[in-house]
Amino acid sequence: MKLKTIFLGLEAGGRSVVIMNGDDAERLGVLALGRVTVRLDGIVKTAIVNTSTEMIEPGRIGVCKRVWEGLGLADGSEVEVEVAPFPDSIYFIRNKLDGRKLAFDEVLEIVEDTVAERLSDVEITAFVTALHSFGLDLDEATNLSLAMIKTGRTMKLDGGPIVDKHSIGGVPGDKTTLLVVPLVAAAGLLIPKSSSRAITSPAGTADRAEVLMPVGLDLEEMRSVVEEAGGCIVWGGSVHLAPADDIFVRVEYPLSIDPLLLPSIISKKRAVGADLLVVDIPTGRGAKVKTIGEANLLAKDFMEIGSRLGIRVQGAVTYGEQPIGRAIGPALEAKEAMEVLMNRPGPRDVAEKATAIAGILLEMAGREDGKALAEELLRSGKAEQKMREIIEAQGGDPEVLPEDIAVGDHKFTVRSDRSGHLLWINNSSIAEVARFAGCPKDEGAGILLARKIGDAVEEGDPLFTIFAERGNNLQRALDRLEGLRVVGVGDGMEMLIHEVKERPVAKRSFTLDR
Amino acid sequence: MKLKTIFLGLEAGGRSVVIMNGDDAERLGVLALGRVTVRLDGIVKTAIVNTSTEMIEPGRIGVCKRVWEGLGLADGSEVEVEVAPFPDSIYFIRNKLDGRKLAFDEVLEIVEDTVAERLSDVEITAFVTALHSFGLDLDEATNLSLAMIKTGRTMKLDGGPIVDKHSIGGVPGDKTTLLVVPLVAAAGLLIPKSSSRAITSPAGTADRAEVLMPVGLDLEEMRSVVEEAGGCIVWGGSVHLAPADDIFVRVEYPLSIDPLLLPSIISKKRAVGADLLVVDIPTGRGAKVKTIGEANLLAKDFMEIGSRLGIRVQGAVTYGEQPIGRAIGPALEAKEAMEVLMNRPGPRDVAEKATAIAGILLEMAGREDGKALAEELLRSGKAEQKMREIIEAQGGDPEVLPEDIAVGDHKFTVRSDRSGHLLWINNSSIAEVARFAGCPKDEGAGILLARKIGDAVEEGDPLFTIFAERGNNLQRALDRLEGLRVVGVGDGMEMLIHEVKERPVAKRSFTLDR
Repeated sequence: MKLKTIFLGLEAGGRSVVIMNGDDAERLGVLALGRVTVRLDGIVKTAIVNTSTEMIEPGRIGVCKRVWEGLGLADGSEVEVEVAPFPDSIYFIRNKLDGRKLAFDEVLEIVEDTVAERLSDVEITAFVTALHSFGLDLDEATNLSLAMIKTGRTMKLDGGPIVDKHSIGGVPGDKTTLLVVPLVAAAGLLIPKSSSRAITSPAGTADRAEVLMPVGLDLEEMRSVVEEAGGCIVWGGSVHLAPADDIFVRVEYPLSIDPLLLPSIISKKRAVGADLLVVDIPTGRGAKVKTIGEANLLAKDFMEIGSRLGIRVQGAVTYGEQPIGRAIGPALEAKEAMEVLMNRPGPRDVAEKATAIAGILLEMAGREDGKALAEELLRSGKAEQKMREIIEAQGGDPEVLPEDIAVGDHKFTVRSDRSGHLLWINNSSIAEVARFAGCPKDEGAGILLARKIGDAVEEGDPLFTIFAERGNNLQRALDRLEGLRVVGVGDGMEMLIHEVKERPVAKRSFTLDR
Repeated sequence: MKLKTIFLGLEAGGRSVVIMNGDDAERLGVLALGRVTVRLDGIVKTAIVNTSTEMIEPGRIGVCKRVWEGLGLADGSEVEVEVAPFPDSIYFIRNKLDGRKLAFDEVLEIVEDTVAERLSDVEITAFVTALHSFGLDLDEATNLSLAMIKTGRTMKLDGGPIVDKHSIGGVPGDKTTLLVVPLVAAAGLLIPKSSSRAITSPAGTADRAEVLMPVGLDLEEMRSVVEEAGGCIVWGGSVHLAPADDIFVRVEYPLSIDPLLLPSIISKKRAVGADLLVVDIPTGRGAKVKTIGEANLLAKDFMEIGSRLGIRVQGAVTYGEQPIGRAIGPALEAKEAMEVLMNRPGPRDVAEKATAIAGILLEMAGREDGKALAEELLRSGKAEQKMREIIEAQGGDPEVLPEDIAVGDHKFTVRSDRSGHLLWINNSSIAEVARFAGCPKDEGAGILLARKIGDAVEEGDPLFTIFAERGNNLQRALDRLEGLRVVGVGDGMEMLIHEVKERPVAKRSFTLDR
């Protein structure tokens, strides 16, 4: 069917989408959410169909940005539109939905079709949920990693060893990477670190680093920073190491599932050529991984899949019952990281965790007594000096001081209504309040803890301070605080945590009248 | 955030969708495929977000038809847009993704949110695929049926008993319903039959019936036809008995899965008040159900779920190795059905199957010797008379004769290149060729079989004729025929069915170069 094109700026979450007149679609024999090929001068793009009777007149076709640019269309270009055959990968996805195992060439075809936008959201969701429901064995995880590497960009650095670290996340305030990178780079290792932005947390490492320097580097810029300074902290989204993963995440996010954890991480590490990797697994009731037993199993999976891809992996099971350090939120955390690098007084746990992880990497690279070496690199100011080199190489201000970093000037301090000890901190409530205060969008928003677990608390003592850039955000955070117990102060004798009540169902019951 | 509306005629496959400027979406803190509420004068609609920087300027929001009409918007109306909270039903869907069982109030909430368009395609797909992967037990199937009835329209007829029939389908040419409805209505039973159109088959019952009479009746019109004539054959899509099912089908179709089979059927039967139901389960290698053992198990599930909903169900396991009768395609099948009703010479299997199924319904309703009674109703012309009453009540021509029904005048007869007996007919290949010839869109397209399984065949004898309304469709069907073996003629001694060859994977292998 020949149709004349109309440009729609529509980005459609990265999808290739066209909008056809409803009658044209019916005549062509394609349903809404079906699939067509759009052809011009021998170039063919596949797109998912939406229909509209009012927006698009018969004989026309609305084309999204991706297809428009892919075909080099102009307004009114005449394209040939045909019903597209179902890609083979749908059969492979259906096999996985039936619990069958996928072979490498099947996984590769699914990933290639995902990246080429030949699969619809329905089909990609079916794949991701099937991986969640049935799990992946190590063969499948390895195959998925290989497929994601093959469909993404890769980097080759001269010299080495090339090291990397990854935290599976889940603990607010975890600015460890801002210290580990300069620590190991100061010892002469190469660490091409790419990090993510926050999706549901108050700050991702890319958000924290961006307070100090630009992080939206492309792969070439990333390489030259590492060649110059030995390390970098860039945003993974701009280097396109695993475009398939960026698409899978869109499905995982609304469902809060993460079946691609291993392949997603390991493929990006392999893409930057990492030889040695430490995976940090924070463990605690409020972390992603609840028990040490689970953490050990996950670490072993990482080690096994790493060995199949030629990466030596070591797991670091860390304490994740409370935030790392006192600061939560991009600017507050960047400030705290700089204070620790400058050996200013502050919480011990930030330096402790960073030197432990840097120490493991140093020992994997053949250095002796890695933790002590890392501590010395921190104490001597060499790590700080290296961080300033990295900031400069990425285009930030190398002279930056913690007091230069602006934080929100709307604040409120929450105080204890009783005396005792701080017994627990609820990670997810802390994260939620920080997000209501404006994190990660407002980089000056966040929370500063005045007490951590085990600290003595008197009635009226400050527990934490909420920072916001805008007054209405501070108010939203305070409103949200109402229904939450963010921290627990007591004498350790309150044994009832909370009640599990019957869900009221009365309003939903109904009788089936005949 | 306050935004000014722009109308997009976008139907988006029934979804509620808005398109925001990318920067506005970022400022609001919502990702593409996230969810917002749109509010005007106290009315609130939830919609899925797409983003565009070029199509929608900052401060504006493009609104799909559904939300536009729901809020009574005008161009430039100022609406309040907020990030929508995740509906609870997402947590229930996630539980099912982890293999847990759903309670009634959870199922109801998922179905209500589906119908109210509060769930995105990603979330609905996750639900449907989880049902496919883990299966539904009878409690869940019952709960889903109840939820689908509660969210749809229902009908109450006076008198009775009210009977119904359903075929799970999969066999081309199955025009049984066009005979069963007048047969049982002629015996005084009420049969408010709603049927589907073809999705992947050459013709659905609604497509066949539409050749003889209008089928797009609403629920009130359907009721008055049944009150007048005792029976009807209408299209289910226009009576809105189970709007949730119409949405689930959109996801099931591209994935070729059908986990909601039982609730989807039984809820619609319950919605029209059926007391007695026969479920036809065609069985054969080319049918949906392959073995008689499977068919028996499925029939028992139908009987059990029926009893929980107050419907007496009986299964009819039928022979599904080849098409029913000789005709495939809407007009050819309507013609054949009328010929059988008029006792004209033709294949015996159509009448045989229809009287068997009508006979079961008659016996369930307390009549004796149901099959013989049905045969007598057919032989005496009472079924034909009843069919003409139904055609008239639905607005068709009650005087219609088979020879009045037009079929495509582009045709080609395929002849045998050998002598022997017809050993098999490939149902799915027959269906595919008929669709290439134009079915179901071109109602005069289709296939007429000259031989059926067991018939003697001489070299040069006709095997089947392809009909098309347009020459290029006939050519497409003939091209498609090239690679297919649609029927098998032989002496029964060819024991090799086909070879399973190694899949060529060479082009896909790659080495991981370091």
